[in-house]
Amino acid sequence: MTLHGKLFIGSTLATGNGDTTRPTSPLDNRLLEPGFHQAAETDVDAAMSLAEEAFTAYRRTSGEQRAGFLEAMSNEIMELGDALIDRGHLETGLPKPRLVGERGRTCGQLKMFADLVRDGSWTDARIDTALPDREPLPKPDLRRMLSPLGPVVVFGASNFPLAFSVAGGDTASALAVGCPVVVKAHSAHPGTAELVATAIGKAVAGCGMPPGVFSMLHGRGSVVGIALVKHPLTCAAGFTGSREGGRALFDAAVARPVPIPVFAEMSSLNPVFLLPEALQRRSEAIAEGLTESFTLGVGQFCTKPGLVFGVSGDALTRFQEQLCARVTAAAPATMLHAGICATFHEGLSHARQVSGASVLAESSQAADPGQTHGEPVVMQTDAETFLSQPQLAKEVFGPFTLVVAGQSIEELEKVAAGLEGQLTATLHGTEADLAEAGGLVRILERKAGRLIVNGFPTGVEVCPSMNHGGPYPATTDARFTSVGTAAIQRWARPICYQDFPAELLPAELQDSNPRGVRQLRDGVVS
Amino acid sequence: MTLHGKLFIGSTLATGNGDTTRPTSPLDNRLLEPGFHQAAETDVDAAMSLAEEAFTAYRRTSGEQRAGFLEAMSNEIMELGDALIDRGHLETGLPKPRLVGERGRTCGQLKMFADLVRDGSWTDARIDTALPDREPLPKPDLRRMLSPLGPVVVFGASNFPLAFSVAGGDTASALAVGCPVVVKAHSAHPGTAELVATAIGKAVAGCGMPPGVFSMLHGRGSVVGIALVKHPLTCAAGFTGSREGGRALFDAAVARPVPIPVFAEMSSLNPVFLLPEALQRRSEAIAEGLTESFTLGVGQFCTKPGLVFGVSGDALTRFQEQLCARVTAAAPATMLHAGICATFHEGLSHARQVSGASVLAESSQAADPGQTHGEPVVMQTDAETFLSQPQLAKEVFGPFTLVVAGQSIEELEKVAAGLEGQLTATLHGTEADLAEAGGLVRILERKAGRLIVNGFPTGVEVCPSMNHGGPYPATTDARFTSVGTAAIQRWARPICYQDFPAELLPAELQDSNPRGVRQLRDGVVS
Repeated sequence: MTLHGKLFIGSTLATGNGDTTRPTSPLDNRLLEPGFHQAAETDVDAAMSLAEEAFTAYRRTSGEQRAGFLEAMSNEIMELGDALIDRGHLETGLPKPRLVGERGRTCGQLKMFADLVRDGSWTDARIDTALPDREPLPKPDLRRMLSPLGPVVVFGASNFPLAFSVAGGDTASALAVGCPVVVKAHSAHPGTAELVATAIGKAVAGCGMPPGVFSMLHGRGSVVGIALVKHPLTCAAGFTGSREGGRALFDAAVARPVPIPVFAEMSSLNPVFLLPEALQRRSEAIAEGLTESFTLGVGQFCTKPGLVFGVSGDALTRFQEQLCARVTAAAPATMLHAGICATFHEGLSHARQVSGASVLAESSQAADPGQTHGEPVVMQTDAETFLSQPQLAKEVFGPFTLVVAGQSIEELEKVAAGLEGQLTATLHGTEADLAEAGGLVRILERKAGRLIVNGFPTGVEVCPSMNHGGPYPATTDARFTSVGTAAIQRWARPICYQDFPAELLPAELQDSNPRGVRQLRDGVVS
Repeated sequence: MTLHGKLFIGSTLATGNGDTTRPTSPLDNRLLEPGFHQAAETDVDAAMSLAEEAFTAYRRTSGEQRAGFLEAMSNEIMELGDALIDRGHLETGLPKPRLVGERGRTCGQLKMFADLVRDGSWTDARIDTALPDREPLPKPDLRRMLSPLGPVVVFGASNFPLAFSVAGGDTASALAVGCPVVVKAHSAHPGTAELVATAIGKAVAGCGMPPGVFSMLHGRGSVVGIALVKHPLTCAAGFTGSREGGRALFDAAVARPVPIPVFAEMSSLNPVFLLPEALQRRSEAIAEGLTESFTLGVGQFCTKPGLVFGVSGDALTRFQEQLCARVTAAAPATMLHAGICATFHEGLSHARQVSGASVLAESSQAADPGQTHGEPVVMQTDAETFLSQPQLAKEVFGPFTLVVAGQSIEELEKVAAGLEGQLTATLHGTEADLAEAGGLVRILERKAGRLIVNGFPTGVEVCPSMNHGGPYPATTDARFTSVGTAAIQRWARPICYQDFPAELLPAELQDSNPRGVRQLRDGVVS
């Protein structure tokens, strides 16, 4: 498969503003072919206008039709075969088995949303029938359901080049609702993006969807990304990336004449609290699990545990020794791109300079800059230093974690209460530990979107109960998740129909319920 | 009942910054007693700190406990008896029967949210049970439910001194979820606000709720209101009022280091489309219903129909004559306060100056400034003028509406497509009209939160299917409603619990389901 490097404006390939950029392989720092065309303002406008045009027809497709489209996307992505895995490996440095797994997750997500919209109950259909004889005033017939917002902009994330990128969860959930999608491809894996966009284009054509339902642009986030968010036809945006990047998009979105929602997932330390008896009894297993979790994917997960809290004492000392042994033995590995690698080493260097914090262990192997290596590092400090040095509470994206020793559970509760918003928070405890941990749990419920007992935060299950979100700065909107079936709610708003004739009502709200969706009828679930 | 004019900081009465202001009765422009103390920054901080303190206990109360509290609020408000109605009439000029009706609605809302939280299904409890033997990775046990955001700020609205004010829908829904509330009382009805706050205080004490669960401040919106929204402990805010006021609060909220949601309901023209055959057959009834709707409450409803569209011709001319007769006979009436009355007359005066628009009819009785009168007025224009004069698409809050004549349905569709976001849009049509109206309905679905056939937008039913919201500038967030059971969703966010022991789980997520809530268990509704 030869890559063309062009922009996808619906079914048309475009060459942008004339500039092209070539990605670099993090495996060996070599420039890759081809050059990828950078979008001009006119491309942004063309893609958004086509999306708006497509919305008229696309919002009226049935759940069944959209389900078929999502499944076709999944099939077309599988049809790309090894070419996708090979290019992904070249552009991201991620091992091929990981990419095969991620492709499975991506297709699984598409199928999950297909099932969800085929079922149709996500529309939260509600019917309150009329009471024409009610006194003093008759009650009208009222019916309400969730409907798609309109064209959505999705930003590909570098750390999941498939599952949070061109056909990732944001795109899948927005298309499932009935929103056309314009993707801003991540500049680190434009070829991978092009392959997936080509697969989506085939699904669009094969399913007879309006071409504007999907477009994809290349270009700089600060230019093309901001222009997409500011475009008057854009109704919402989804982003996963840095805190600075997400906040810039959010700020642009809320300063518009007509503000729009931006779902930006940005930054999280994912604190882990080791309770005394668990540390006493299972320090070895925790050290093993923690090392695996914070080095998984070279530490490039939003849910990487970057902070570990325990109470000072023999058990914590033993745990640190066990952790030390494992981290020393852990090998450096290729990070996603030179920028992330540089930011990782900058973060490390800042942390090392904090007085009162020191390196507990680091990989015994030197990191090779020629292979864009990140090396596993653990640092240690005490709770007092942690509280007084805000630098230590900044996310270091990569295989790094910080062990913080407190004098008591009370001191750790105080530290917990001062944390910023998080995607996750974790407790390790025995039955006896947990019986005493209610206070800490109450604090962490205010801080995080997902709380975990005796596990690790990496590994985000895709299911109805998942919440992948959390208070700022974990995300810009803690009320929504970007993973799991509830992710669909980000792209919808309710519309109420009063005294409508059946013929003008959406199928989901008709008495005959031709799509067989769950309806709340006069307060009773049907 | 003697009014004290003080601030409610939980159960403590405070005197603010030393300044007091006295409200004016719109009935006769006379200053009323007492002076009301204006909040200082320290009062804002005290109220928010107490709210945060109360949240720890209040969020853990059961739905049953909060239901009892909401019902006690309703009872205490009824206990105020005629004193509330009398003071309300004096401060707002609204007729006493209207205030009696609004009190009924207010208490009805409190009871509706009591029923809703007693039932508990609003928490959207989801359970995905573990699959420890799943390959390649075991699936953890995941459970998710909606939880309260934290302290909420509510702004009393002038046009519903009970139902959208101190104990109105925002307060009721926030308290129902488990969020403490700090109310910024509206300066036009501070005595009415004090009476209701006193009733709530009794309910707080009687139900043993933490005192900080409710506070109420007086003060200027641009000072105290903004300070409340900017306070770091504030987690969300609800507002109903002007477009400028709502946007100022929104801008302050999103510029915070930690942005928070502001649900501002602001501005809506509520367009009404009169289709040809309906106009032919029922012009008299439509003229009657429209006059009643746009003059109801002296036109001071957010859902007042302020724009009426029809196709030029004999039927529209006849309708305009019928409307003319009714509006000429309609009497001026007292508006809520001098500021609203002045803004109404300013809006009228601007509309009158638009070339191509003219007065179709106005009340034959002169408006008495000594009674803060607003007089019913209808103007007319054609679609071309409407499209070229943005002034005509500005809300004139009060008993005013504008009839716009188009050359064809196609021209009216073009006008509809250019409208800003609306709370409602209405169609009047016969069966034959509606069979042709699909295109117009599709356009209006993009524009409004509620679509009405053969009715009028005033009169907002409080029920599960209601959506009182809409695209900007109708509200700052079209994804949520401020009326009906779904209003509760504004104050909640999901929290997910992974592999939690039953003892640490909220009751709603336990297998034993002690509160008997609806659970989505492994994808199946129980």
